[in-house]
Amino acid sequence: MASEAKESPANNPGLQANPDEATKSYFMQQTMYRIKDPKVSLDFYSRVLGMSLLKRLDFPEMKFSLYFMGYEDPTSAPSNSVDRTVWTFSQKATIELTHNWGTESDPEFKGYHNGNSEPRGFGHIGITVDDTSKACERFERLGVEFVKKPDDGKMKGIAFIKDPDGYWIEIFDLKTIGNIAVV
Amino acid sequence: MASEAKESPANNPGLQANPDEATKSYFMQQTMYRIKDPKVSLDFYSRVLGMSLLKRLDFPEMKFSLYFMGYEDPTSAPSNSVDRTVWTFSQKATIELTHNWGTESDPEFKGYHNGNSEPRGFGHIGITVDDTSKACERFERLGVEFVKKPDDGKMKGIAFIKDPDGYWIEIFDLKTIGNIAVV
Repeated sequence: MASEAKESPANNPGLQANPDEATKSYFMQQTMYRIKDPKVSLDFYSRVLGMSLLKRLDFPEMKFSLYFMGYEDPTSAPSNSVDRTVWTFSQKATIELTHNWGTESDPEFKGYHNGNSEPRGFGHIGITVDDTSKACERFERLGVEFVKKPDDGKMKGIAFIKDPDGYWIEIFDLKTIGNIAVV
Repeated sequence: MASEAKESPANNPGLQANPDEATKSYFMQQTMYRIKDPKVSLDFYSRVLGMSLLKRLDFPEMKFSLYFMGYEDPTSAPSNSVDRTVWTFSQKATIELTHNWGTESDPEFKGYHNGNSEPRGFGHIGITVDDTSKACERFERLGVEFVKKPDDGKMKGIAFIKDPDGYWIEIFDLKTIGNIAVV
């Protein structure tokens, strides 16, 4: 049917139209990647991107810590530590930064792989901002490294920056995003 | 101060307590990774995980397509294609599956890297479910591959499954997640 939305199951083999009742309360809670140095990453995600530390979990036996970052207001978090864990896992769209202890001071540590060169896989996270140009001017002032500035390349109005480990972060706004891929 | 929350700036060098006013409207919108075959992945993310296809964007010149998957109700999406793009990018926590055309039928294609073996980086996404055991019984019935079942290993009540490309997906619920890392 010509008027069928591009997103209809008829146009997308494999796609199921009606989610199973069993999955009704599911939600996308976290995206995890590894970081070399929490001091550097906490600075970047809080100062540059404006996220807060929702929860920190330490695993001394296994020598790693998890830092859950997000845009929720941590002043609304419960003060009890266990309740705060549950509160954090009830938030959508958090970033889970995994720090394996010692990498920050290990001269042999070669850094993490961002997935955009071979072997490829993971690509990026993406953050919706109010105004891409304004956001990118601020990122420039703060010394953030760019993969692509908003006016570079084919996709105007979209930028990619790098976090301290080299992971890509896409930056876009709702005023211009509608102009891409109008086919 | 002993009573200071573990998440306070005093306990976390680099962390800024007050997000810059310029970042106030930012939100975490997407996590992108590459997939070999949309037919297989659309089936998995919709039938097994209960997500919907919020938006598909095709880039014929560059020979790739993007599939935005999420837990929003697509019947509430605008029917106009451009408006639907804007609607999609205004949703938190979507999964952006990138399909580079041809990989699904290329016998030379070796698959994507999930980031959990060398070179490491990205780890997983995580989905909050109502009941981990129940969800995992259903996944088993559906033939989903497990990295870790809820009762395996040290972290009881948490599971990891694999998507069709081998990416890891953590599965947990709010009834048991408070029991981890109580230090």
